[in-house]
Amino acid sequence: MDYYEESLKLHEQHHGKLEVTPKVPCENAQDLSIAYTPGVAQPCLEIQKNPEDSYRYTDRGNTVAVVTDGTAVLGLGDIGPAAALPVMEGKALLMKRFAGLDAWPICLDTKDPEEIIRICKAIAPGIGAINLEDISAPRCVTIERRLIEECPIPVFHDDQHGTAIVVLAGLINAMKLRHADPADMKVVVSGCGAAGSSIIRMIYQYGFHRIYAFDLEGCVDADRKEHYNPLKQELLQYVNKDHQHYASLADGLKGADIFIGVSAPRLVSKEMVRSMNPQSVVFPMANPESEISYEDARDAGAWIVGTGRSDHPNQINNLLAFPGLFRGALDCWATRISESMKIAASRAIASLVSDEELSTDYIVPSPFDKRVVPAVSAAVQKACRESGYYRK
Amino acid sequence: MDYYEESLKLHEQHHGKLEVTPKVPCENAQDLSIAYTPGVAQPCLEIQKNPEDSYRYTDRGNTVAVVTDGTAVLGLGDIGPAAALPVMEGKALLMKRFAGLDAWPICLDTKDPEEIIRICKAIAPGIGAINLEDISAPRCVTIERRLIEECPIPVFHDDQHGTAIVVLAGLINAMKLRHADPADMKVVVSGCGAAGSSIIRMIYQYGFHRIYAFDLEGCVDADRKEHYNPLKQELLQYVNKDHQHYASLADGLKGADIFIGVSAPRLVSKEMVRSMNPQSVVFPMANPESEISYEDARDAGAWIVGTGRSDHPNQINNLLAFPGLFRGALDCWATRISESMKIAASRAIASLVSDEELSTDYIVPSPFDKRVVPAVSAAVQKACRESGYYRK
Repeated sequence: MDYYEESLKLHEQHHGKLEVTPKVPCENAQDLSIAYTPGVAQPCLEIQKNPEDSYRYTDRGNTVAVVTDGTAVLGLGDIGPAAALPVMEGKALLMKRFAGLDAWPICLDTKDPEEIIRICKAIAPGIGAINLEDISAPRCVTIERRLIEECPIPVFHDDQHGTAIVVLAGLINAMKLRHADPADMKVVVSGCGAAGSSIIRMIYQYGFHRIYAFDLEGCVDADRKEHYNPLKQELLQYVNKDHQHYASLADGLKGADIFIGVSAPRLVSKEMVRSMNPQSVVFPMANPESEISYEDARDAGAWIVGTGRSDHPNQINNLLAFPGLFRGALDCWATRISESMKIAASRAIASLVSDEELSTDYIVPSPFDKRVVPAVSAAVQKACRESGYYRK
Repeated sequence: MDYYEESLKLHEQHHGKLEVTPKVPCENAQDLSIAYTPGVAQPCLEIQKNPEDSYRYTDRGNTVAVVTDGTAVLGLGDIGPAAALPVMEGKALLMKRFAGLDAWPICLDTKDPEEIIRICKAIAPGIGAINLEDISAPRCVTIERRLIEECPIPVFHDDQHGTAIVVLAGLINAMKLRHADPADMKVVVSGCGAAGSSIIRMIYQYGFHRIYAFDLEGCVDADRKEHYNPLKQELLQYVNKDHQHYASLADGLKGADIFIGVSAPRLVSKEMVRSMNPQSVVFPMANPESEISYEDARDAGAWIVGTGRSDHPNQINNLLAFPGLFRGALDCWATRISESMKIAASRAIASLVSDEELSTDYIVPSPFDKRVVPAVSAAVQKACRESGYYRK
């Protein structure tokens, strides 16, 4: 099937993918007097007295704004806010389908980080959470961090952390299968953008401390610190702690246990996979074409292979993370999404694969597994309560 | 029935009044490949090539953002953006119920007109139109006018023009019933805020040229021009052309043919109505209590009485105007809502009362009359095409 052609047909036929529908009756003058004037004054006054009552008397506690500036859409790049809308509608569709959330796209005609921050803060009183989407790096990191500090509702940039949460879930189960200690693993990450940086931070926090990061400039290394942007400088806290001077990604992969790719097509050869340690874990996830194909990685002896694709085993899909994460955060009227909430999500995803089921071809559940969202949501809520970032 | 108590119960039970629902299947990996990645890249690329395709491939052409800063909500005043949300959800509910539109509230945590203007312009790429709601005067006028000039999509402030459109519809039919020429009518308007100013401009454009406007400072009069804010100064183009110096509203109403009240409770006595000309038309519409009660106005001999209430004849309800207006504008991918589109809406509303039905107790149709939205929408579309503000 030609997904591109089918997609165009679907979008044209339905004029997009979302609609807004009433949850209450609105058929006659009496319905209106209750749902609208004069009765509606009462919930308004209650919220004026106690602003948190907006979670009680409106849809606020079930809503997510999907905010983009259209600068880094899918693999398409900076296509602008109007052209990003089909993706944002898609994201909102998934929020509803998988977690019952009411998400709505907001496509911004500005690339100024300060302006984007101001707008997100300004719209906060009417929504429960903000999902930043497809905003280019490193701006996306600045925008998200500022908003986490300054915005009274949870702000989460899925492109940074969605994949990271699922990568960690996969690694948790790979370690279990291999009976290995994360601290012993040599991990090579290709790509230091939004997703790569978040993956590095998350897996480090979990216990992977032998991490080496590569990008177009080579191996990230404290000696070259002055040439790095602030985001990359920050990575030096987590990577290359023993000051290796790998000449290339190929050099770094020798004797590695884990490869994580969020970079570009065809950077990893079969030769390079063969140079890794036995029982190697290889997650080539570049989009739309990965660092090495699933088939080539298996041919070259990779023990566990995880990709972004649904037609291979072990799909590392952010869909496993964000619906349950937002569901859990909103269910306790969260004020932010903390690091511990993200790691709780990873653990919850990993835990759904039982010891009996766990195999090199099954380290993470399917996004269509109905247990995923409730498990992630419950774990995230628990972590949120423990970290104190909740209102209910 | 206690509408306030019932309303609070309804809002708590349903957690607000809106939800977002999918229009397309999303049940399995294949559905996702069409509605989301990789297929969704195709509509994105089409829109990138031709931005107007966003109306074709997304819900944009059916969406209205209901934007407020919560400064002038119902009769409650400046209750803030969070407390305004139940009203905005209500407005969105009416948009769907009456015109099939997908409207979504945006409650802004800023009162700065420049910031509100910037935000509305920034969100424009993803929506079809903006309904400004419950923003205090005179800021609302500045904000709307700037956006009409600077924003590429229609922007309409319902509090200004919604009531005005229906008032004009009522007057059109009152004139028909009275066989009178608008130019001969002495019209007294009480209230020069957002609604009053718009009513004065609209009925003047239609042909009512003997208008006198009153507010707390008395009769609007060119001699006092230097004391007026710019909005009120502008009204001098339309009112008091023969330089009357009425001492009071009571003085002005002597010999008047039409009274329109958008001001405050109990400003008009039975005595004052008695001093009007025979076949007087009295629209006391202040909220929640009007300038004179329906009963008192009738007792005092008013010939036609129109109010904001559904429990009396001739309800002057903006619900007759805005759903069809936005429907019509979006159906031709309008770039703005022009003066002629608003007057077309008034004429369409008036035209739904047939000569046989027309009576002093029936000058405007019911908002639940199913002919209203199609008639208004068709008339608005026609006027939009004639004025050139359309894309389709």
